Amino acid sequence: MVYLTRKAEFSASHYYHNDEFTAEENQRIFGKCNNPNGHGHNYTLEVTVKGKVDQRSGFVVDLKQLKEVMNREVIEAMDHRHLNKEVAEFRDRIPTTENLAISIWNRLKPKLQVAELHRVRVYETPDLFVDFYGEA
Amino acid sequence: MVYLTRKAEFSASHYYHNDEFTAEENQRIFGKCNNPNGHGHNYTLEVTVKGKVDQRSGFVVDLKQLKEVMNREVIEAMDHRHLNKEVAEFRDRIPTTENLAISIWNRLKPKLQVAELHRVRVYETPDLFVDFYGEA
Amino acid sequence: MVYLTRKAEFSASHYYHNDEFTAEENQRIFGKCNNPNGHGHNYTLEVTVKGKVDQRSGFVVDLKQLKEVMNREVIEAMDHRHLNKEVAEFRDRIPTTENLAISIWNRLKPKLQVAELHRVRVYETPDLFVDFYGEA
Amino acid sequence: MVYLTRKAEFSASHYYHNDEFTAEENQRIFGKCNNPNGHGHNYTLEVTVKGKVDQRSGFVVDLKQLKEVMNREVIEAMDHRHLNKEVAEFRDRIPTTENLAISIWNRLKPKLQVAELHRVRVYETPDLFVDFYGEA
Amino acid sequence: MVYLTRKAEFSASHYYHNDEFTAEENQRIFGKCNNPNGHGHNYTLEVTVKGKVDQRSGFVVDLKQLKEVMNREVIEAMDHRHLNKEVAEFRDRIPTTENLAISIWNRLKPKLQVAELHRVRVYETPDLFVDFYGEA
Amino acid sequence: MVYLTRKAEFSASHYYHNDEFTAEENQRIFGKCNNPNGHGHNYTLEVTVKGKVDQRSGFVVDLKQLKEVMNREVIEAMDHRHLNKEVAEFRDRIPTTENLAISIWNRLKPKLQVAELHRVRVYETPDLFVDFYGEA
Repeated sequence: MVYLTRKAEFSASHYYHNDEFTAEENQRIFGKCNNPNGHGHNYTLEVTVKGKVDQRSGFVVDLKQLKEVMNREVIEAMDHRHLNKEVAEFRDRIPTTENLAISIWNRLKPKLQVAELHRVRVYETPDLFVDFYGEA
Repeated sequence: MVYLTRKAEFSASHYYHNDEFTAEENQRIFGKCNNPNGHGHNYTLEVTVKGKVDQRSGFVVDLKQLKEVMNREVIEAMDHRHLNKEVAEFRDRIPTTENLAISIWNRLKPKLQVAELHRVRVYETPDLFVDFYGEA
Repeated sequence: MVYLTRKAEFSASHYYHNDEFTAEENQRIFGKCNNPNGHGHNYTLEVTVKGKVDQRSGFVVDLKQLKEVMNREVIEAMDHRHLNKEVAEFRDRIPTTENLAISIWNRLKPKLQVAELHRVRVYETPDLFVDFYGEA
Repeated sequence: MVYLTRKAEFSASHYYHNDEFTAEENQRIFGKCNNPNGHGHNYTLEVTVKGKVDQRSGFVVDLKQLKEVMNREVIEAMDHRHLNKEVAEFRDRIPTTENLAISIWNRLKPKLQVAELHRVRVYETPDLFVDFYGEA
Repeated sequence: MVYLTRKAEFSASHYYHNDEFTAEENQRIFGKCNNPNGHGHNYTLEVTVKGKVDQRSGFVVDLKQLKEVMNREVIEAMDHRHLNKEVAEFRDRIPTTENLAISIWNRLKPKLQVAELHRVRVYETPDLFVDFYGEA
Repeated sequence: MVYLTRKAEFSASHYYHNDEFTAEENQRIFGKCNNPNGHGHNYTLEVTVKGKVDQRSGFVVDLKQLKEVMNREVIEAMDHRHLNKEVAEFRDRIPTTENLAISIWNRLKPKLQVAELHRVRVYETPDLFVDFYGEA
């Protein structure tokens, strides 16, 4: 059983706002992330799959397929996008790094076949990242 | 004569669009950067000053003053902002990395006293950066 | 359940010495780290908390509070300090990276409320780091 | 119980080929990695050991001994080598990053005494790495 | 006048050998790089161009064209290749980092139009790099 | 003419203090760096030499010799040392990053033969570095 991790990057913008909060609450809780004009990040995504090594290929997963799934399900959907306005699940969910990691897990999980999805890590900046393992 | 460089980071969003271009030209020239919803980056700024070392302090520049100038003139103005909408010089100038480096030079140049501004470097991503030395 | 990690940095000096060892043992076991004048490092600290995502804010933890706790309990106590001479728990405990990770865990654990402390990672250099999960 | 990780680097060349595959299969499965002239990488190795902290030294492991074992068992055997041609276990096993992590685990496991081997991580590039914990 | 730098990476293998040297000289001068089986690296390439900023686009160079030229002239020619055996100029020239930087300069110089090539930087490892500015 | 740069790292402690300043001046000018117990850093050193490429070896400089000179003149003298107390030139000169870069230049310049010293860069932290080119 080995764990293989592949990184990818995408650039997106977002802002944090909850209509159920007052203006003062939005400001206090979200600070400068509440700016409605949005701001952005170079996100780094790490996707980890686990499985047994195929004795014939030496691979736990076909890297080209993993790359294709990551590109199609995540990068094309989010790169150079405004997360709140253009990514469906963030129309009514705040695109924090936490929710972004969960969203990416949910996008990748049903599309990976041979190897099992183990962890999604999302860096919002080099100093802040979130891990999600699919735990309820 | 020594050269001292200090790094700082800020997160902002932007998009590329020129009203004088046709929609097709905007798309061809700017590609996915033309998305009017904007996208964003974690910018890394490197500011280099040069000067003689003060024999009494061992410093070429007071680092606290340099940090204050960088924060006031650049970080507070641009961090968690939409460059096109909220930074004055980008109302009628496209906020490419090239123009961003020139803008930051123009903001810092008149505010630095003891040490001379030598170079502004702006990374848009870890794989793309622009240097400006104030050359016409 | 998500895991959020925040990085911070501090610079400190230290040296390794055990009064119960002979001079020869101190030299053999600690090598150049035994130099009584001390030497130093830029430590990188990663603090990981885990918890459920608050549906209203999208956060697992209030990042400003986490930053405040890390600054008050660790950075202010250790940054630009001599660990052996100025940090209480290292008066009679050698400030190795192992003990530093345990010390930081013990400082943070009682101060974190909503989210649970999961891991403390301390890099002494980019090539050497220690993880502590609170395990006995 | 703490976990200590030490990094090291080595440069090697390799290529992927399975004699039981047809030329077409080798090409489809391994792509440009199938080039028989070989290509190479700067591998980064992270070795993690776990154990209790020795109260007298503050160490979980003697770092000099760990370094010696890593150098002797891995770096000297693989650095500036062609993995397929010069490392015994890859004469009949494809030197993928997966197999490399398992091979390094098997080389280190019997040589580590005080502290227990916990994880071997191998980066083939900064964007691709494999973890092995000794799990069947 | 601004300077724009774009990074790219490629993985290749090589070895150092001069037929005019004795075996002893080859060993003394090239050390373990003389291993005829070859070894490899993840090379990082930084290409810097300089020019005036186009007032209409805000660009000093069309990034897509720069990327295409770098891919066609360098990456496709060298990635996953054995430099001595598969890259023409290294059939009779030792593929040191110095010669590799000069070779890449010579490949790119005639293909860049609007912006002028200013510098080629090649990292053989994170700790060793060579810059070439086209100086005789 | 090519420029080759080699990196190395060392860990040291220091503090900033000028006996000619009042206690208040020392505090105002040097801030927490004035702590007499000292603090420390992982310094990263980049040494750049320039010269013509030897057609027979493909080298601008013998890397083993460059490494030996850097180790002997800088790393052995400064690694795991207290700069103020153990490095001769800092007995009466403040070990700022500026002065450290000049000191390293002066140590290396007379020892390099074939290739000419071009630049010394010293990183005190990843966010602060100084370049010295030997300019008066």
